[in-house]
Amino acid sequence: MKEKVIKRVKTVLESPKSDNGILPAESSPLKPYRLAHTSGDEKTVIDVQGLLVGGPQVVIMAGPCSVENEEQITLIAKAVKEAGGTVLRGGAFKPRTGPYDFQGLGKRGLQLLQKAARSTGLRSITEVMDPRDVDLIVEYADILQIGARNMQNYTLLREVGRTKHPVLLKRGMHSTYKEFLLAAEYILTGGNANVMLCERGIRTHVTELRFTLDLNAVPYLQNETHLPIIVDPSHGTGRRDLVPAMSRAAIAAGADGLLIECHIDPDKSISDAEQAISIEALNQLMREINTIAGAIGRTVAT
Amino acid sequence: MKEKVIKRVKTVLESPKSDNGILPAESSPLKPYRLAHTSGDEKTVIDVQGLLVGGPQVVIMAGPCSVENEEQITLIAKAVKEAGGTVLRGGAFKPRTGPYDFQGLGKRGLQLLQKAARSTGLRSITEVMDPRDVDLIVEYADILQIGARNMQNYTLLREVGRTKHPVLLKRGMHSTYKEFLLAAEYILTGGNANVMLCERGIRTHVTELRFTLDLNAVPYLQNETHLPIIVDPSHGTGRRDLVPAMSRAAIAAGADGLLIECHIDPDKSISDAEQAISIEALNQLMREINTIAGAIGRTVAT
Amino acid sequence: MKEKVIKRVKTVLESPKSDNGILPAESSPLKPYRLAHTSGDEKTVIDVQGLLVGGPQVVIMAGPCSVENEEQITLIAKAVKEAGGTVLRGGAFKPRTGPYDFQGLGKRGLQLLQKAARSTGLRSITEVMDPRDVDLIVEYADILQIGARNMQNYTLLREVGRTKHPVLLKRGMHSTYKEFLLAAEYILTGGNANVMLCERGIRTHVTELRFTLDLNAVPYLQNETHLPIIVDPSHGTGRRDLVPAMSRAAIAAGADGLLIECHIDPDKSISDAEQAISIEALNQLMREINTIAGAIGRTVAT
Amino acid sequence: MKEKVIKRVKTVLESPKSDNGILPAESSPLKPYRLAHTSGDEKTVIDVQGLLVGGPQVVIMAGPCSVENEEQITLIAKAVKEAGGTVLRGGAFKPRTGPYDFQGLGKRGLQLLQKAARSTGLRSITEVMDPRDVDLIVEYADILQIGARNMQNYTLLREVGRTKHPVLLKRGMHSTYKEFLLAAEYILTGGNANVMLCERGIRTHVTELRFTLDLNAVPYLQNETHLPIIVDPSHGTGRRDLVPAMSRAAIAAGADGLLIECHIDPDKSISDAEQAISIEALNQLMREINTIAGAIGRTVAT
Repeated sequence: MKEKVIKRVKTVLESPKSDNGILPAESSPLKPYRLAHTSGDEKTVIDVQGLLVGGPQVVIMAGPCSVENEEQITLIAKAVKEAGGTVLRGGAFKPRTGPYDFQGLGKRGLQLLQKAARSTGLRSITEVMDPRDVDLIVEYADILQIGARNMQNYTLLREVGRTKHPVLLKRGMHSTYKEFLLAAEYILTGGNANVMLCERGIRTHVTELRFTLDLNAVPYLQNETHLPIIVDPSHGTGRRDLVPAMSRAAIAAGADGLLIECHIDPDKSISDAEQAISIEALNQLMREINTIAGAIGRTVAT
Repeated sequence: MKEKVIKRVKTVLESPKSDNGILPAESSPLKPYRLAHTSGDEKTVIDVQGLLVGGPQVVIMAGPCSVENEEQITLIAKAVKEAGGTVLRGGAFKPRTGPYDFQGLGKRGLQLLQKAARSTGLRSITEVMDPRDVDLIVEYADILQIGARNMQNYTLLREVGRTKHPVLLKRGMHSTYKEFLLAAEYILTGGNANVMLCERGIRTHVTELRFTLDLNAVPYLQNETHLPIIVDPSHGTGRRDLVPAMSRAAIAAGADGLLIECHIDPDKSISDAEQAISIEALNQLMREINTIAGAIGRTVAT
Repeated sequence: MKEKVIKRVKTVLESPKSDNGILPAESSPLKPYRLAHTSGDEKTVIDVQGLLVGGPQVVIMAGPCSVENEEQITLIAKAVKEAGGTVLRGGAFKPRTGPYDFQGLGKRGLQLLQKAARSTGLRSITEVMDPRDVDLIVEYADILQIGARNMQNYTLLREVGRTKHPVLLKRGMHSTYKEFLLAAEYILTGGNANVMLCERGIRTHVTELRFTLDLNAVPYLQNETHLPIIVDPSHGTGRRDLVPAMSRAAIAAGADGLLIECHIDPDKSISDAEQAISIEALNQLMREINTIAGAIGRTVAT
Repeated sequence: MKEKVIKRVKTVLESPKSDNGILPAESSPLKPYRLAHTSGDEKTVIDVQGLLVGGPQVVIMAGPCSVENEEQITLIAKAVKEAGGTVLRGGAFKPRTGPYDFQGLGKRGLQLLQKAARSTGLRSITEVMDPRDVDLIVEYADILQIGARNMQNYTLLREVGRTKHPVLLKRGMHSTYKEFLLAAEYILTGGNANVMLCERGIRTHVTELRFTLDLNAVPYLQNETHLPIIVDPSHGTGRRDLVPAMSRAAIAAGADGLLIECHIDPDKSISDAEQAISIEALNQLMREINTIAGAIGRTVAT
């Protein structure tokens, strides 16, 4: 299937363009996101250094909100590996609501993340915020993450579209499904077919939670697109006590993977402490995920 | 546990009141919904004519949006029973957005619903909209439903609180969890401890779906209250193609039951046609629910 | 114009009905709210004991959230009259989110409101919550208010539709404009053409304010309906410091009137203390409203 | 006042920093946006080539969504000048939801905008999307606009913070007031005190309008910050028939200026046709704005 999608990307890119490099609107089919759209059961399977995302197996990505220091990321990497996870998350460049909050370790964080991932046999994912950092991050991480606040940062989308590197695109907290798919389309039109979508909670009137994780996105998007769909229950709820139930629910709904914040000492996380789960909770959660995945005929990638 | 709740209700009702019959605010504990609140693992189990809601077993309620005629409700009742459901839903008094829409068969609908439920061994649930109809509906249906639009219709809440009849209270589409629990508190303070909460979708900016089913409500409410939690994926999404995935997710998240719209000929439903599933789909869904319930150590009540 | 609307109501009511008393859907024109709709510049003007609402003059309704005691309502009535208001508001039956909050003085509150209004030459408005109270409240108040939480309480809407008494219908905090107009349509189809619409704030993700007053409703509704449009900046923002600016804005946008909470001692209000303005602030606000009304060619009714 | 703000910016920048160049959190006062905050009546007045924004006069910015060609922008510039506007808007780099939509003329658009503005004596405003374009746009336009989708594009915020050029920061459609002020804080901490805030509509459940213009932001922000507040009723509603009423309301609420889309032939706009008003409508609107401004003791800058 991935070949088909890549071929569609190629065909589109070779068709006549308007002066500003954008394809003429009249070549669009019914759906405005013609590359992201599927009309059948086709699924894109993305190869992340041998780990397949979007296939029969469910993929678990876990790790801290931020890379804080070598000991922290190394210990967490080992714990994620032992729990059965396959991708290590960890922020080096952090998008923080306020300018006085911790902004991440930058390049040093990338190096620590890469080292911890390689030494444990995990793949790695980290966020890119600046279009000028794309090439740097491609060197260090296996998956580029676009954060929710940048879902419609078209400059950044085009820049990651230029690479062939796997991208995890987070849904904007205000966005409709159509806007989410159109943001993916920006990356696809650049020639990069390796796009995963990530539901991570939307803004609603519900004040008790930081965000409202919208699991309806999973079956809705699966009907509309061939791209893999990952769920982030940590940001999606903002509360660690809801993470296990929403993780089980996401897998039961058909998600292709989870992105989970965990920490060796959650209450001491520099950022987002209230949503990180402990290593013990991660181990328990992995057992539950295995059972639910089995109930719907899938397994967890190891 | 139910006895404890009833005792708490009794204790509260016997404590000194202010002139207008309302308990003095100073007797409130930390949570504003002191009867609905739980501080531990206690759960209320509601006995609906021998069917237990809120216990280890998951309860499936299914049926048409509206009772349309005898043949329709009889055929659907048989199909629900065969599929493994235990409660028959069907509207007789319908809250419709516009005054020109079909408003239900009224008392005749209640009679048809009762007959169809009794002849198949199902319990029945139907909506009450008018405080003056409470006694009438208690005669005909095993569970009184309060619709989302009436979640803060305090007159109606007090009136069903007067009875001891099981009540399913739907969450208002704009409400926070606190407001939802405070609405339940109105019924509990009346002396009726048999309250089930039902998540049925909230209003958000997402235009692709009629509502956004908020499954976060399931684990959140389970931490806050001892009352059983039911999920309605039919109204919650407004689209029948999303009902199976969201039903599985609701059970995986820990819901105590589901309320599902089904129809022998969904496209011919007088109301809400686009969200009713077919009998074939209901049978398939019941198999999936059984598997997911098993994966989390529960069974489906039969 | 009011005669035209009444005639339309009459025509509709005399056309053939379906068995359940509801008009056949096929007689509907393009707009689902055919009585509330206007296709031209027609406006309904409602006569409230000689005070015209919906005409060239802007109408100011003010008073406390709740009638608390005779002294309070009498002093406030005098102050409202002196400031230039024409309608006295004051709740006797209060819809409160929690059952332990003050629920109003009931019938005694109605009597005090009526007495205070009559002795100062003001008209009065108060909320009706229970369909069984409609006749009682018609006796005591000049305008029946339907609260936001009851906007889709169809039983109550039909009951006030039975009377010919002026009704102020508040917009539900979750409702679209279409749903608001359809709720008005329920009252109009009952034969009561004296309906005012009231924008009072919607639920959004904005956590800093209790509600988000939606002034877009004013010009939108004026394009769609002939009914008068009132704005409630007190509930709409929940903060007294925003009331003056939003009152000016509402009049500049074209609202036919304002519904304002004021109190002789705002911080001691039994309910909604944080949104009531003082009498001094009301006097200052009336001067500003007069100036803005003048700028758009209107005056304030006295 | 501007000097005071600049001094505060300077003081903050000279205080000790953490390793990653960010100020230590412990130096924060009560408000997380300590530079944007005001505790009194101080107001920042921004000098845009002699035009003062945030002072006693109201500033009108108008023009097309996109610069389409020389004739279009020249004709509109003349019309804006004649109507009494002082700033010409026009997009050269356009943030479009889908990749197949018209993306703007780029540098050629900047040149045409500058030429049209200079030849008519107007200042100019245009959007910057790419941090690498900041210096280019500073050369051509008098005000840099940050679009709503980039409100939390921290890379871009820091880049415009590096310049001293006036910036108009649009509120994200999902953002709270606090998040909006924190985004401004990113620019201020860079040393650029010339920041105007622009309310342009938020995402709500209201489906009839593209966005819900939130005028509550005007008085709320005026209580919290010394920065000027501009309102964009064109994007804020998405409908040209609502622009006049919402413009009047914005000025009555206390806004320091308006940003309005107009076109010589609105229905032929390449982008956002449904929200642009005609030149005739702009002239009529300017008369109304003058009257409302006068009613609250202000005038319109010319």
